[in-house]
Amino acid sequence: MATISHVSPLAPAYFPELPLIGGVRFASAAAGVRYKGRTDVMLAVLQPGTAIAGVFTKSATRSAPVLDCQAKLGQPAGGPAAILVNSGNSNAFTGHYGQASVSEITAAVAKVTGVDQSRVFTASTGVIGEPLPHEKIITKLEELNGALSDAAIEDAARAIMTTDTFAKGATAEIEIDGKPVKIAGIAKGSGMIAPDMATMLVYIFTDAAYDQAALQALLSKLTETTFNCITVDSDTSTSDSLMLAATGAAGVDATGNAAFETALNSVMLDLSQQVVRDGEGATKFVEIRVTGAASDADAKIHGLAIANSPLVKTAIAGEDPNWGRVVMAIGKSGAAADRDSLTIRFGDILVAENGWVSPNYSEDQAAAYMKGQDLVIAVDLGLGSGKATVWTCDLTHGYIEINADYRS
Amino acid sequence: MATISHVSPLAPAYFPELPLIGGVRFASAAAGVRYKGRTDVMLAVLQPGTAIAGVFTKSATRSAPVLDCQAKLGQPAGGPAAILVNSGNSNAFTGHYGQASVSEITAAVAKVTGVDQSRVFTASTGVIGEPLPHEKIITKLEELNGALSDAAIEDAARAIMTTDTFAKGATAEIEIDGKPVKIAGIAKGSGMIAPDMATMLVYIFTDAAYDQAALQALLSKLTETTFNCITVDSDTSTSDSLMLAATGAAGVDATGNAAFETALNSVMLDLSQQVVRDGEGATKFVEIRVTGAASDADAKIHGLAIANSPLVKTAIAGEDPNWGRVVMAIGKSGAAADRDSLTIRFGDILVAENGWVSPNYSEDQAAAYMKGQDLVIAVDLGLGSGKATVWTCDLTHGYIEINADYRS
Repeated sequence: MATISHVSPLAPAYFPELPLIGGVRFASAAAGVRYKGRTDVMLAVLQPGTAIAGVFTKSATRSAPVLDCQAKLGQPAGGPAAILVNSGNSNAFTGHYGQASVSEITAAVAKVTGVDQSRVFTASTGVIGEPLPHEKIITKLEELNGALSDAAIEDAARAIMTTDTFAKGATAEIEIDGKPVKIAGIAKGSGMIAPDMATMLVYIFTDAAYDQAALQALLSKLTETTFNCITVDSDTSTSDSLMLAATGAAGVDATGNAAFETALNSVMLDLSQQVVRDGEGATKFVEIRVTGAASDADAKIHGLAIANSPLVKTAIAGEDPNWGRVVMAIGKSGAAADRDSLTIRFGDILVAENGWVSPNYSEDQAAAYMKGQDLVIAVDLGLGSGKATVWTCDLTHGYIEINADYRS
Repeated sequence: MATISHVSPLAPAYFPELPLIGGVRFASAAAGVRYKGRTDVMLAVLQPGTAIAGVFTKSATRSAPVLDCQAKLGQPAGGPAAILVNSGNSNAFTGHYGQASVSEITAAVAKVTGVDQSRVFTASTGVIGEPLPHEKIITKLEELNGALSDAAIEDAARAIMTTDTFAKGATAEIEIDGKPVKIAGIAKGSGMIAPDMATMLVYIFTDAAYDQAALQALLSKLTETTFNCITVDSDTSTSDSLMLAATGAAGVDATGNAAFETALNSVMLDLSQQVVRDGEGATKFVEIRVTGAASDADAKIHGLAIANSPLVKTAIAGEDPNWGRVVMAIGKSGAAADRDSLTIRFGDILVAENGWVSPNYSEDQAAAYMKGQDLVIAVDLGLGSGKATVWTCDLTHGYIEINADYRS
């Protein structure tokens, strides 16, 4: 793969201090699946009774680990659970061999950790179509199990990175019935990132208790406006998975609690935006706010059409306030639009209204705005009350460099 | 705009020798709409009784000239007709001013040429959202009208270029009832190219006579498998137009003639592929053949998902036989696919079958194939008899260079 020699200019200044989440322990190891000189496997073990929810890629060619997780998730919470993730190889499009690898790994994890195999979840991320050397992972399981620690979540975040240039974590803390409840999550992802799925690999943990079915419903709902509203390159991964585990160690049931939902949403939004900030080759972080659409669904279609347009993304890379390309993207999206009722703003700058450029528009002012690192493009369709916000990055030479040479 | 200093490596060796088409005369001029030192306006005048058909962008933000053409096309053939095209400015998203420009230009063309204003069609291509300096065009109309020649089609092809690196023409000749019938067409386009529309500016002329309604039906049908099966960057223009004029000067009615349809299709296919060969920054021409899909529509969805994937396109640019990304694109397309019944070939090389890499696959052999300039990616879904072929190019640094700096 391409060597990533520098951290994204959009990266947060530092990895956040994540709180210990009672009921979950982590370990990571260097199994040499593909990368040398770094960790590439993480193991998380969850205490008995932990409720687990998951959202996965909708790809028709999804990987063997994704299919295995989806088959297991419907079952009721019971004994302990485990999550094992490797980077470097996605175990996707590997036929029956891929399924066999998942069986071998989950059986071995079950044996070493004492977790029932039906509660062992795996994920693999990296190159598609090459056999996963699962024996390299299996030989590391004793070491991983012996190293489990409730303080090792940051190391776990590093072990699941592929083309990521920084590790991604987010946290929130609230009180329910006077008791502290914590949420901590980690994520990886920077390319093959597009919505309509549970993008990338994301693991979120809370010490709250939560009803299993309600947890799944909550996760699915919040995914729609967080991970399903980001895009780097419009490409959808075969492997990507988002899992949320509620251990109950805090002694509080958060089922249906509004403050918990808000806190969880903030963690999911933070992690999803960090993925965009690590978009392959990204130099600009762009928020696209669509309002006044005929429906929320239409607003999201428009937002994604703008966010995925190579011409919009290259204009942003060139710091060119080329609002004509925003008009183009709205026009092609397929959702309802009326040229003459459109309003477009770059930040606070009114660019276009009434079907044409605003009479007060200053190209110099807009060009100065485009030099910023965090940009907002706001579009009002003038048709109804539908709205959506999506996040993306620019399209640069860096993206070409990383992806024209990924496997060499 | 970016300076285009070199011709696409995929360009044909020379502009084809286009035959004279009885009943149509051309002229071009340098009006200075935006570019300096080159022609930027073309005029074509068609003899009375010419049948004219057109297909236009489906963009919801389409330009004033497109709206004007669409309003005029339904009318029966009658007197002479005229087509006036400028490059450098698209007169799109220019509000009421844009409509006024079209009215001014078509009225002036009518006055100078004697063609009824209802038979004057225009198109504008270039930057979106800036007022069209229509007076610069109008002052050139007398010069254009005086220079009309039946031999000036190549100059017309040059006058409509924007980021194109070569002029595009194609021709075919057949006999009907022992009489020669000729077809000649010109096109421009290299970016903001995606299907589901009449892509770019394309003008095709024949000296056959053809029933007006049947001509429109024929053009619409053939567009689906030619211009609507190409993509450079998945972006859909606000301006683009395809018009076909049948002058009848050959004294032959070709309505419903199968040989004529085949010949017209070959001209349309040739021009559409030339647009891909001039794709912004392109270094590889890629044909994507999809077979075995559940339906033809599904096959086209898969083909376009592969053709529009930035990860597939950058892998091709890097000469990397990264078939995993082809699997990914099929998986995300939304059309029916079964991982385990997929077959993928790069040229004649069997890459993947039965849900995994072929046992005889040689990465070295595939890597050698990818060094070629014209590539074929063949996908069989193994589900049914649906098929489609689409054409695209790779995604390179050249695309970023051209589009990050288009307006500066």
